[in-house]
Amino acid sequence: MISVAILGAGNVATHLFKAFSKKEGVFVSQWYNRHIDTLASYKNEVDVIDDLSQLKDADVYIMAVSDDVIANLSSQLPFENRLVVHTSGSVSVYDIDKKHKRGVLYPLQTFSKNAEIDFANVPICIETINKACYPLLKQLARSLGSPTKRVNSDQRRVLHLAAVFVNNFTNQLYRIGHEITESEGAEFDLLKPLILETALKVQNHSPFTAQTGPAKRHDKKTIKKHLKALENPHHKNIYELLTESIQHTHGRKKL
Amino acid sequence: MISVAILGAGNVATHLFKAFSKKEGVFVSQWYNRHIDTLASYKNEVDVIDDLSQLKDADVYIMAVSDDVIANLSSQLPFENRLVVHTSGSVSVYDIDKKHKRGVLYPLQTFSKNAEIDFANVPICIETINKACYPLLKQLARSLGSPTKRVNSDQRRVLHLAAVFVNNFTNQLYRIGHEITESEGAEFDLLKPLILETALKVQNHSPFTAQTGPAKRHDKKTIKKHLKALENPHHKNIYELLTESIQHTHGRKKL
Repeated sequence: MISVAILGAGNVATHLFKAFSKKEGVFVSQWYNRHIDTLASYKNEVDVIDDLSQLKDADVYIMAVSDDVIANLSSQLPFENRLVVHTSGSVSVYDIDKKHKRGVLYPLQTFSKNAEIDFANVPICIETINKACYPLLKQLARSLGSPTKRVNSDQRRVLHLAAVFVNNFTNQLYRIGHEITESEGAEFDLLKPLILETALKVQNHSPFTAQTGPAKRHDKKTIKKHLKALENPHHKNIYELLTESIQHTHGRKKL
Repeated sequence: MISVAILGAGNVATHLFKAFSKKEGVFVSQWYNRHIDTLASYKNEVDVIDDLSQLKDADVYIMAVSDDVIANLSSQLPFENRLVVHTSGSVSVYDIDKKHKRGVLYPLQTFSKNAEIDFANVPICIETINKACYPLLKQLARSLGSPTKRVNSDQRRVLHLAAVFVNNFTNQLYRIGHEITESEGAEFDLLKPLILETALKVQNHSPFTAQTGPAKRHDKKTIKKHLKALENPHHKNIYELLTESIQHTHGRKKL
Protein backbone atom coordinates (compact mmCIF):
# COMPACT_ATOMS: atom_id res chain seq x y z
CA MET A 1 0.00 0.00 0.00
CA ILE A 2 1.48 3.33 -1.10
CA SER A 3 0.54 6.25 1.13
CA VAL A 4 0.13 9.60 -0.58
CA ALA A 5 -0.37 13.17 0.60
CA ILE A 6 -1.88 15.56 -1.92
CA LEU A 7 -1.09 19.27 -1.79
CA GLY A 8 -3.33 21.69 -3.69
CA ALA A 9 -7.01 21.72 -4.61
CA GLY A 10 -7.12 22.47 -8.33
CA ASN A 11 -8.33 20.24 -11.16
CA VAL A 12 -5.34 17.91 -11.16
CA ALA A 13 -5.32 17.52 -7.37
CA THR A 14 -9.05 16.80 -7.30
CA HIS A 15 -8.96 14.29 -10.14
CA LEU A 16 -5.98 12.55 -8.55
CA PHE A 17 -7.74 12.34 -5.19
CA LYS A 18 -10.91 10.90 -6.72
CA ALA A 19 -8.99 8.39 -8.82
CA PHE A 20 -6.71 7.23 -5.97
CA SER A 21 -9.71 6.83 -3.69
CA LYS A 22 -11.23 4.29 -6.05
CA LYS A 23 -8.08 2.26 -6.63
CA GLU A 24 -6.43 -0.57 -4.78
CA GLY A 25 -2.88 -0.26 -3.55
CA VAL A 26 -2.95 3.47 -2.82
CA PHE A 27 -4.10 5.33 0.25
CA VAL A 28 -4.47 9.13 0.36
CA SER A 29 -3.55 9.81 3.95
CA GLN A 30 -3.89 13.61 3.89
CA TRP A 31 -5.04 16.41 1.61
CA TYR A 32 -3.57 19.84 2.20
CA ASN A 33 -4.76 23.16 0.89
CA ARG A 34 -3.97 26.70 1.99
CA HIS A 35 -7.72 27.38 2.12
CA ILE A 36 -9.32 24.47 3.91
CA ASP A 37 -12.82 25.54 2.88
CA THR A 38 -12.15 24.31 -0.67
CA LEU A 39 -11.70 20.81 0.72
CA ALA A 40 -14.70 20.91 3.09
CA SER A 41 -16.79 18.49 1.04
CA TYR A 42 -14.08 15.82 1.33
CA LYS A 43 -13.53 16.00 5.09
CA ASN A 44 -15.35 12.72 5.75
CA GLU A 45 -13.24 10.88 3.20
CA VAL A 46 -9.75 12.07 4.04
CA ASP A 47 -7.80 14.01 6.64
CA VAL A 48 -7.99 17.54 5.23
CA ILE A 49 -5.50 20.09 6.59
CA ASP A 50 -4.43 23.69 5.99
CA ASP A 51 -1.34 23.61 8.16
CA LEU A 52 1.83 22.09 6.72
CA SER A 53 3.11 21.23 10.20
CA GLN A 54 0.32 18.65 10.46
CA LEU A 55 1.69 16.63 7.54
CA LYS A 56 2.42 13.07 8.58
CA ASP A 57 4.77 10.55 7.12
CA ALA A 58 3.79 9.46 3.59
CA ASP A 59 5.52 7.56 0.80
CA VAL A 60 4.91 10.35 -1.71
CA TYR A 61 3.91 14.01 -1.42
CA ILE A 62 2.25 15.23 -4.60
CA MET A 63 2.29 19.00 -5.10
CA ALA A 64 -0.50 19.59 -7.64
CA VAL A 65 -0.27 23.36 -7.41
CA SER A 66 0.34 26.35 -9.70
CA ASP A 67 3.77 26.45 -11.32
CA ASP A 68 4.68 29.63 -9.46
CA VAL A 69 4.06 28.09 -6.05
CA ILE A 70 6.03 24.86 -6.41
CA ALA A 71 9.48 26.05 -5.31
CA ASN A 72 8.23 27.95 -2.30
CA LEU A 73 5.81 25.28 -1.12
CA SER A 74 8.50 22.60 -1.34
CA SER A 75 10.81 24.70 0.86
CA GLN A 76 8.11 25.11 3.46
CA LEU A 77 7.54 21.38 3.88
CA PRO A 78 8.67 20.63 7.46
CA PHE A 79 10.69 17.50 6.67
CA GLU A 80 13.48 16.31 4.43
CA ASN A 81 14.68 13.25 2.54
CA ARG A 82 11.15 12.23 1.62
CA LEU A 83 9.84 11.81 -1.93
CA VAL A 84 8.22 15.06 -3.11
CA VAL A 85 6.94 15.45 -6.67
CA HIS A 86 5.17 18.12 -8.68
CA THR A 87 2.75 17.58 -11.58
CA SER A 88 3.78 20.43 -13.89
CA GLY A 89 4.80 20.06 -17.51
CA SER A 90 7.09 23.04 -17.54
CA VAL A 91 8.65 23.50 -14.09
CA SER A 92 12.11 22.03 -13.55
CA VAL A 93 12.43 19.15 -11.13
CA TYR A 94 15.28 21.16 -9.60
CA ASP A 95 12.81 23.86 -8.54
CA ILE A 96 11.79 21.49 -5.76
CA ASP A 97 13.84 22.17 -2.63
CA LYS A 98 16.94 19.99 -2.66
CA LYS A 99 16.33 18.80 0.89
CA HIS A 100 13.80 16.37 -0.64
CA LYS A 101 14.00 13.36 -2.88
CA ARG A 102 12.64 14.99 -6.01
CA GLY A 103 10.48 13.88 -8.92
CA VAL A 104 7.73 14.77 -11.36
CA LEU A 105 4.47 13.05 -12.21
CA TYR A 106 3.27 14.92 -15.29
CA PRO A 107 -0.18 13.80 -16.47
CA LEU A 108 -0.36 14.58 -20.19
CA GLN A 109 -4.05 15.35 -20.47
CA THR A 110 -6.52 18.20 -20.21
CA PHE A 111 -8.55 18.19 -17.01
CA SER A 112 -11.95 19.78 -16.74
CA LYS A 113 -13.52 20.66 -13.41
CA ASN A 114 -16.63 18.56 -13.81
CA ALA A 115 -16.00 15.89 -16.42
CA GLU A 116 -15.07 12.49 -15.00
CA ILE A 117 -11.66 11.37 -16.25
CA ASP A 118 -10.52 7.84 -17.04
CA PHE A 119 -6.83 7.67 -16.15
CA ALA A 120 -6.39 4.91 -18.72
CA ASN A 121 -6.42 7.86 -21.16
CA VAL A 122 -3.91 9.89 -19.17
CA PRO A 123 -0.29 9.03 -19.97
CA ILE A 124 1.82 9.92 -16.95
CA CYS A 125 5.35 11.11 -17.65
CA ILE A 126 7.68 10.33 -14.79
CA GLU A 127 10.91 12.16 -14.08
CA THR A 128 13.24 11.57 -11.18
CA ILE A 129 16.70 12.80 -10.28
CA ASN A 130 17.55 9.67 -8.35
CA LYS A 131 16.85 6.46 -10.24
CA ALA A 132 15.85 4.77 -7.00
CA CYS A 133 12.71 6.91 -6.76
CA TYR A 134 11.41 5.75 -10.12
CA PRO A 135 9.84 2.33 -9.32
CA LEU A 136 7.53 3.71 -6.62
CA LEU A 137 6.29 6.53 -8.87
CA LYS A 138 5.73 4.08 -11.69
CA GLN A 139 3.76 1.78 -9.38
CA LEU A 140 1.72 4.77 -8.22
CA ALA A 141 0.88 5.84 -11.79
CA ARG A 142 0.11 2.28 -12.80
CA SER A 143 -2.29 1.92 -9.88
CA LEU A 144 -4.41 4.56 -11.64
CA GLY A 145 -4.43 2.45 -14.78
CA SER A 146 -2.35 5.06 -16.61
CA PRO A 147 0.24 4.32 -19.26
CA THR A 148 3.57 5.57 -17.94
CA LYS A 149 6.72 6.81 -19.60
CA ARG A 150 10.01 7.74 -18.05
CA VAL A 151 11.17 11.06 -19.48
CA ASN A 152 14.06 13.43 -18.95
CA SER A 153 13.64 17.18 -18.40
CA ASP A 154 14.05 18.07 -22.08
CA GLN A 155 11.48 15.49 -23.13
CA ARG A 156 8.95 16.69 -20.56
CA ARG A 157 9.55 20.26 -21.68
CA VAL A 158 8.88 19.49 -25.36
CA LEU A 159 5.86 17.34 -24.51
CA HIS A 160 4.37 20.25 -22.60
CA LEU A 161 5.13 22.59 -25.48
CA ALA A 162 3.66 20.17 -28.04
CA ALA A 163 0.60 19.78 -25.80
CA VAL A 164 -0.04 23.51 -26.16
CA PHE A 165 -0.05 23.10 -29.94
CA VAL A 166 -2.30 20.02 -30.10
CA ASN A 167 -4.64 21.11 -27.31
CA ASN A 168 -4.84 24.88 -26.72
CA PHE A 169 -4.01 25.97 -30.26
CA THR A 170 -6.17 23.28 -31.84
CA ASN A 171 -9.03 24.33 -29.61
CA GLN A 172 -8.55 27.91 -30.80
CA LEU A 173 -8.85 26.70 -34.40
CA TYR A 174 -12.15 25.08 -33.39
CA ARG A 175 -13.14 28.43 -31.92
CA ILE A 176 -12.30 30.21 -35.17
CA GLY A 177 -14.31 27.58 -37.05
CA HIS A 178 -17.18 28.39 -34.71
CA GLU A 179 -16.90 32.13 -35.38
CA ILE A 180 -16.64 31.68 -39.15
CA THR A 181 -19.67 29.39 -39.44
CA GLU A 182 -21.82 31.52 -37.16
CA SER A 183 -20.98 34.63 -39.19
CA GLU A 184 -23.30 33.27 -41.90
CA GLY A 185 -25.77 31.54 -39.60
CA ALA A 186 -24.36 28.12 -40.44
CA GLU A 187 -24.19 25.50 -37.71
CA PHE A 188 -20.93 24.71 -35.93
CA ASP A 189 -22.48 21.33 -35.07
CA LEU A 190 -22.01 20.27 -38.69
CA LEU A 191 -18.24 20.43 -38.13
CA LYS A 192 -18.18 18.20 -35.07
CA PRO A 193 -17.90 14.85 -36.89
CA LEU A 194 -15.03 16.29 -38.94
CA ILE A 195 -13.27 17.49 -35.80
CA LEU A 196 -13.55 14.04 -34.28
CA GLU A 197 -12.47 12.22 -37.44
CA THR A 198 -9.40 14.47 -37.76
CA ALA A 199 -8.34 13.52 -34.23
CA LEU A 200 -9.14 9.84 -34.77
CA LYS A 201 -7.12 9.69 -37.99
CA VAL A 202 -3.84 10.52 -36.26
CA GLN A 203 -4.38 7.79 -33.68
CA ASN A 204 -3.30 5.35 -36.42
CA HIS A 205 -1.64 7.48 -39.09
CA SER A 206 1.08 10.11 -38.84
CA PRO A 207 -0.19 13.70 -39.20
CA PHE A 208 2.08 13.95 -42.21
CA THR A 209 0.26 11.12 -43.99
CA ALA A 210 -3.16 12.32 -42.84
CA GLN A 211 -2.87 15.80 -44.38
CA THR A 212 -5.29 16.82 -47.16
CA GLY A 213 -6.83 20.06 -48.41
CA PRO A 214 -6.13 23.12 -50.54
CA ALA A 215 -2.81 24.04 -48.89
CA LYS A 216 -1.29 20.61 -49.46
CA ARG A 217 -2.70 20.49 -53.01
CA HIS A 218 -1.36 24.00 -53.70
CA ASP A 219 -4.87 24.81 -54.87
CA LYS A 220 -4.28 28.53 -55.39
CA LYS A 221 -7.81 29.23 -56.54
CA THR A 222 -9.43 27.93 -53.36
CA ILE A 223 -6.80 29.54 -51.15
CA LYS A 224 -7.47 32.88 -52.82
CA LYS A 225 -11.23 32.48 -52.36
CA HIS A 226 -10.75 31.65 -48.70
CA LEU A 227 -8.48 34.61 -48.03
CA LYS A 228 -10.98 36.87 -49.72
CA ALA A 229 -13.83 35.45 -47.63
CA LEU A 230 -12.01 35.94 -44.32
CA GLU A 231 -13.01 39.30 -42.92
CA ASN A 232 -11.20 39.10 -39.61
CA PRO A 233 -7.51 40.07 -40.14
CA HIS A 234 -6.41 37.73 -37.32
CA HIS A 235 -8.11 34.81 -39.04
CA LYS A 236 -6.52 35.83 -42.33
CA ASN A 237 -3.03 35.86 -40.74
CA ILE A 238 -3.57 32.45 -39.21
CA TYR A 239 -4.85 31.09 -42.54
CA GLU A 240 -1.78 32.38 -44.37
CA LEU A 241 0.72 31.19 -41.77
CA LEU A 242 -0.71 27.67 -41.45
CA THR A 243 -1.07 27.33 -45.23
CA GLU A 244 2.61 28.25 -45.55
CA SER A 245 3.47 25.82 -42.78
CA ILE A 246 1.65 22.96 -44.54
CA GLN A 247 3.35 23.81 -47.82
CA HIS A 248 6.68 23.98 -46.05
CA THR A 249 6.07 20.51 -44.59
CA HIS A 250 4.81 19.00 -47.82
CA GLY A 251 7.28 20.64 -50.20
CA ARG A 252 6.98 22.50 -53.47
CA LYS A 253 6.29 26.15 -54.00
CA LYS A 254 5.18 28.73 -51.44
CA LEU A 255 1.81 30.49 -51.18
CA MET B 1 -35.88 3.67 -55.87
CA ILE B 2 -33.61 6.59 -56.75
CA SER B 3 -31.30 5.98 -59.70
CA VAL B 4 -27.90 7.65 -59.56
CA ALA B 5 -25.05 8.07 -62.01
CA ILE B 6 -21.67 8.85 -60.45
CA LEU B 7 -19.08 10.84 -62.39
CA GLY B 8 -15.48 10.76 -61.22
CA ALA B 9 -13.30 8.17 -59.48
CA GLY B 10 -11.68 9.98 -56.57
CA ASN B 11 -12.17 9.39 -52.84
CA VAL B 12 -15.62 10.94 -52.61
CA ALA B 13 -16.90 9.16 -55.73
CA THR B 14 -15.59 5.81 -54.52
CA HIS B 15 -16.96 6.17 -50.99
CA LEU B 16 -20.34 7.24 -52.38
CA PHE B 17 -20.45 4.28 -54.73
CA LYS B 18 -19.59 1.82 -51.96
CA ALA B 19 -22.11 3.34 -49.57
CA PHE B 20 -24.96 3.52 -52.12
CA SER B 21 -24.31 -0.09 -53.13
CA LYS B 22 -25.02 -1.25 -49.59
CA LYS B 23 -28.16 0.80 -49.05
CA GLU B 24 -31.80 0.27 -49.85
CA GLY B 25 -33.67 2.75 -51.96
CA VAL B 26 -30.77 3.79 -54.18
CA PHE B 27 -29.45 2.22 -57.34
CA VAL B 28 -26.17 3.30 -58.98
CA SER B 29 -27.01 2.75 -62.63
CA GLN B 30 -23.71 3.94 -64.12
CA TRP B 31 -20.26 5.04 -63.07
CA TYR B 32 -18.37 7.31 -65.45
CA ASN B 33 -14.70 8.15 -65.44
CA ARG B 34 -12.49 9.67 -68.13
CA HIS B 35 -10.02 6.82 -67.56
CA ILE B 36 -12.03 3.63 -67.44
CA ASP B 37 -9.08 1.63 -66.09
CA THR B 38 -9.54 3.26 -62.70
CA LEU B 39 -12.98 1.67 -62.47
CA ALA B 40 -11.96 -1.76 -63.78
CA SER B 41 -12.33 -3.49 -60.43
CA TYR B 42 -15.99 -2.42 -60.23
CA LYS B 43 -17.10 -3.55 -63.70
CA ASN B 44 -18.98 -6.56 -62.35
CA GLU B 45 -20.94 -4.44 -59.90
CA VAL B 46 -21.98 -1.49 -62.07
CA ASP B 47 -22.08 -0.29 -65.66
CA VAL B 48 -18.73 1.50 -65.93
CA ILE B 49 -18.27 3.90 -68.84
CA ASP B 50 -15.74 6.41 -70.15
CA ASP B 51 -17.95 7.96 -72.81
CA LEU B 52 -20.47 10.60 -71.72
CA SER B 53 -22.72 9.80 -74.68
CA GLN B 54 -23.44 6.44 -73.06
CA LEU B 55 -25.06 8.06 -70.02
CA LYS B 56 -28.61 6.85 -69.56
CA ASP B 57 -31.51 8.45 -67.80
CA ALA B 58 -31.01 8.75 -64.05
CA ASP B 59 -32.74 10.68 -61.27
CA VAL B 60 -29.49 12.33 -60.15
CA TYR B 61 -26.06 12.78 -61.73
CA ILE B 62 -23.39 13.26 -59.06
CA MET B 63 -20.21 14.94 -60.28
CA ALA B 64 -17.64 14.00 -57.63
CA VAL B 65 -14.72 15.51 -59.52
CA SER B 66 -12.03 18.15 -59.00
CA ASP B 67 -13.30 21.69 -58.53
CA ASP B 68 -11.65 22.83 -61.75
CA VAL B 69 -13.44 20.26 -63.88
CA ILE B 70 -17.02 20.78 -62.67
CA ALA B 71 -18.11 23.57 -65.04
CA ASN B 72 -16.68 21.97 -68.14
CA LEU B 73 -17.91 18.47 -67.37
CA SER B 74 -21.43 19.75 -66.71
CA SER B 75 -21.49 21.46 -70.13
CA GLN B 76 -20.40 18.28 -71.85
CA LEU B 77 -23.26 16.23 -70.43
CA PRO B 78 -25.38 15.31 -73.50
CA PHE B 79 -28.77 16.11 -71.99
CA GLU B 80 -30.63 18.90 -70.25
CA ASN B 81 -33.26 19.54 -67.60
CA ARG B 82 -32.04 16.68 -65.45
CA LEU B 83 -30.79 16.99 -61.86
CA VAL B 84 -27.00 17.42 -61.84
CA VAL B 85 -25.11 18.07 -58.61
CA HIS B 86 -21.50 18.49 -57.57
CA THR B 87 -19.94 17.59 -54.20
CA SER B 88 -17.57 20.52 -53.72
CA GLY B 89 -17.49 22.79 -50.70
CA SER B 90 -16.21 25.82 -52.54
CA VAL B 91 -17.53 25.76 -56.13
CA SER B 92 -20.66 27.78 -56.88
CA VAL B 93 -23.79 25.88 -57.79
CA TYR B 94 -24.02 28.32 -60.72
CA ASP B 95 -20.80 26.86 -62.14
CA ILE B 96 -22.92 23.93 -63.26
CA ASP B 97 -24.22 24.50 -66.82
CA LYS B 98 -27.60 26.22 -66.63
CA LYS B 99 -29.15 23.72 -69.02
CA HIS B 100 -29.45 21.39 -66.00
CA LYS B 101 -31.44 21.39 -62.80
CA ARG B 102 -28.60 22.25 -60.45
CA GLY B 103 -27.66 21.35 -56.92
CA VAL B 104 -24.88 20.51 -54.47
CA LEU B 105 -24.40 17.56 -52.14
CA TYR B 106 -21.46 18.62 -49.98
CA PRO B 107 -20.28 15.90 -47.57
CA LEU B 108 -18.61 17.67 -44.66
CA GLN B 109 -16.00 15.09 -43.79
CA THR B 110 -12.45 14.04 -44.61
CA PHE B 111 -12.24 10.98 -46.84
CA SER B 112 -9.24 8.69 -46.89
CA LYS B 113 -8.57 6.33 -49.74
CA ASN B 114 -8.58 3.14 -47.69
CA ALA B 115 -10.43 3.77 -44.44
CA GLU B 116 -14.05 2.61 -44.46
CA ILE B 117 -16.39 5.51 -43.77
CA ASP B 118 -19.66 5.45 -41.84
CA PHE B 119 -21.93 8.00 -43.49
CA ALA B 120 -23.77 8.43 -40.20
CA ASN B 121 -20.72 10.58 -39.34
CA VAL B 122 -20.86 12.56 -42.59
CA PRO B 123 -23.22 15.54 -42.46
CA ILE B 124 -24.35 16.28 -46.00
CA CYS B 125 -25.04 19.91 -46.83
CA ILE B 126 -27.61 20.28 -49.57
CA GLU B 127 -27.95 23.30 -51.81
CA THR B 128 -30.38 23.71 -54.68
CA ILE B 129 -31.39 26.61 -56.88
CA ASN B 130 -34.88 25.29 -57.41
CA LYS B 131 -36.65 24.32 -54.20
CA ALA B 132 -38.37 21.44 -56.01
CA CYS B 133 -35.04 19.59 -56.33
CA TYR B 134 -34.46 19.54 -52.58
CA PRO B 135 -36.65 16.62 -51.39
CA LEU B 136 -35.01 14.08 -53.72
CA LEU B 137 -31.50 15.12 -52.68
CA LYS B 138 -32.51 14.96 -49.04
CA GLN B 139 -33.94 11.48 -49.52
CA LEU B 140 -30.75 10.43 -51.30
CA ALA B 141 -28.52 11.70 -48.47
CA ARG B 142 -30.80 10.17 -45.84
CA SER B 143 -30.58 6.81 -47.59
CA LEU B 144 -26.87 6.85 -46.67
CA GLY B 145 -27.79 7.39 -43.03
CA SER B 146 -26.26 10.87 -43.12
CA PRO B 147 -27.53 13.85 -41.18
CA THR B 148 -28.56 16.48 -43.73
CA LYS B 149 -28.76 20.24 -43.64
CA ARG B 150 -30.10 22.61 -46.24
CA VAL B 151 -27.63 25.45 -46.73
CA ASN B 152 -27.31 28.48 -48.95
CA SER B 153 -24.16 29.32 -50.94
CA ASP B 154 -22.72 31.59 -48.25
CA GLN B 155 -23.24 28.97 -45.58
CA ARG B 156 -21.61 26.26 -47.66
CA ARG B 157 -18.71 28.59 -48.39
CA VAL B 158 -18.05 29.34 -44.70
CA LEU B 159 -18.47 25.69 -43.72
CA HIS B 160 -15.80 24.75 -46.25
CA LEU B 161 -13.53 27.50 -44.97
CA ALA B 162 -14.13 26.50 -41.34
CA ALA B 163 -13.42 22.88 -42.29
CA VAL B 164 -9.95 23.94 -43.45
CA PHE B 165 -9.32 25.41 -39.99
CA VAL B 166 -10.62 22.47 -37.94
CA ASN B 167 -9.24 19.77 -40.22
CA ASN B 168 -6.20 20.77 -42.32
CA PHE B 169 -4.83 23.41 -39.95
CA THR B 170 -5.51 21.31 -36.86
CA ASN B 171 -3.75 18.39 -38.51
CA GLN B 172 -0.77 20.67 -39.16
CA LEU B 173 -0.68 21.53 -35.44
CA TYR B 174 -0.56 17.78 -34.77
CA ARG B 175 2.32 17.61 -37.25
CA ILE B 176 4.17 20.39 -35.43
CA GLY B 177 3.53 18.55 -32.15
CA HIS B 178 5.07 15.50 -33.79
CA GLU B 179 8.17 17.44 -34.90
CA ILE B 180 8.64 19.12 -31.53
CA THR B 181 8.41 15.91 -29.51
CA GLU B 182 10.68 13.96 -31.85
CA SER B 183 13.30 16.71 -31.68
CA GLU B 184 14.08 15.47 -28.16
CA GLY B 185 13.36 11.81 -28.74
CA ALA B 186 10.04 12.02 -26.89
CA GLU B 187 7.11 9.98 -28.17
CA PHE B 188 4.31 11.58 -30.18
CA ASP B 189 2.16 8.65 -29.06
CA LEU B 190 1.98 10.19 -25.59
CA LEU B 191 0.02 13.10 -27.10
CA LYS B 192 -2.63 10.97 -28.79
CA PRO B 193 -5.04 10.71 -25.83
CA LEU B 194 -4.81 14.50 -25.40
CA ILE B 195 -5.55 15.04 -29.11
CA LEU B 196 -8.63 12.84 -28.84
CA GLU B 197 -9.84 14.39 -25.59
CA THR B 198 -9.51 17.89 -27.09
CA ALA B 199 -11.75 16.87 -30.01
CA LEU B 200 -14.21 15.05 -27.73
CA LYS B 201 -14.53 18.04 -25.41
CA VAL B 202 -16.01 20.31 -28.10
CA GLN B 203 -18.62 17.70 -29.00
CA ASN B 204 -20.46 18.85 -25.87
CA HIS B 205 -18.90 22.17 -24.91
CA SER B 206 -18.21 25.28 -26.96
CA PRO B 207 -14.54 25.75 -27.89
CA PHE B 208 -14.74 29.04 -25.98
CA THR B 209 -15.65 27.22 -22.75
CA ALA B 210 -13.20 24.40 -23.38
CA GLN B 211 -10.10 26.60 -23.64
CA THR B 212 -7.31 26.23 -21.05
CA GLY B 213 -3.54 26.76 -20.98
CA PRO B 214 -0.86 29.41 -20.66
CA ALA B 215 -2.24 31.76 -23.35
CA LYS B 216 -5.69 31.95 -21.76
CA ARG B 217 -4.15 32.29 -18.27
CA HIS B 218 -1.79 35.02 -19.55
CA ASP B 219 0.99 32.96 -17.99
CA LYS B 220 3.85 35.09 -19.31
CA LYS B 221 6.55 32.98 -17.69
CA THR B 222 5.51 29.77 -19.47
CA ILE B 223 4.88 31.55 -22.77
CA LYS B 224 8.39 33.02 -22.60
CA LYS B 225 9.89 29.59 -21.85
CA HIS B 226 8.02 28.08 -24.77
CA LEU B 227 9.09 30.77 -27.23
CA LYS B 228 12.67 30.31 -26.10
CA ALA B 229 12.45 26.55 -26.57
CA LEU B 230 11.05 26.78 -30.11
CA GLU B 231 13.96 26.62 -32.51
CA ASN B 232 11.99 26.60 -35.76
CA PRO B 233 11.02 30.20 -36.67
CA HIS B 234 7.80 28.98 -38.37
CA HIS B 235 6.74 27.25 -35.16
CA LYS B 236 7.60 30.36 -33.18
CA ASN B 237 5.43 32.52 -35.46
CA ILE B 238 2.52 30.12 -35.15
CA TYR B 239 2.93 30.00 -31.37
CA GLU B 240 2.86 33.80 -31.15
CA LEU B 241 -0.07 34.25 -33.50
CA LEU B 242 -2.28 31.61 -31.88
CA THR B 243 -1.39 32.82 -28.39
CA GLU B 244 -2.45 36.32 -29.45
CA SER B 245 -5.60 34.91 -30.99
CA ILE B 246 -6.55 33.10 -27.77
CA GLN B 247 -5.89 36.24 -25.75
CA HIS B 248 -7.94 38.26 -28.21
CA THR B 249 -10.82 35.80 -27.82
CA HIS B 250 -10.58 35.61 -24.04
CA GLY B 251 -9.90 39.27 -23.34
CA ARG B 252 -7.43 41.19 -21.26
CA LYS B 253 -3.93 42.24 -22.20
CA LYS B 254 -1.94 41.20 -25.24
CA LEU B 255 1.16 39.04 -25.40
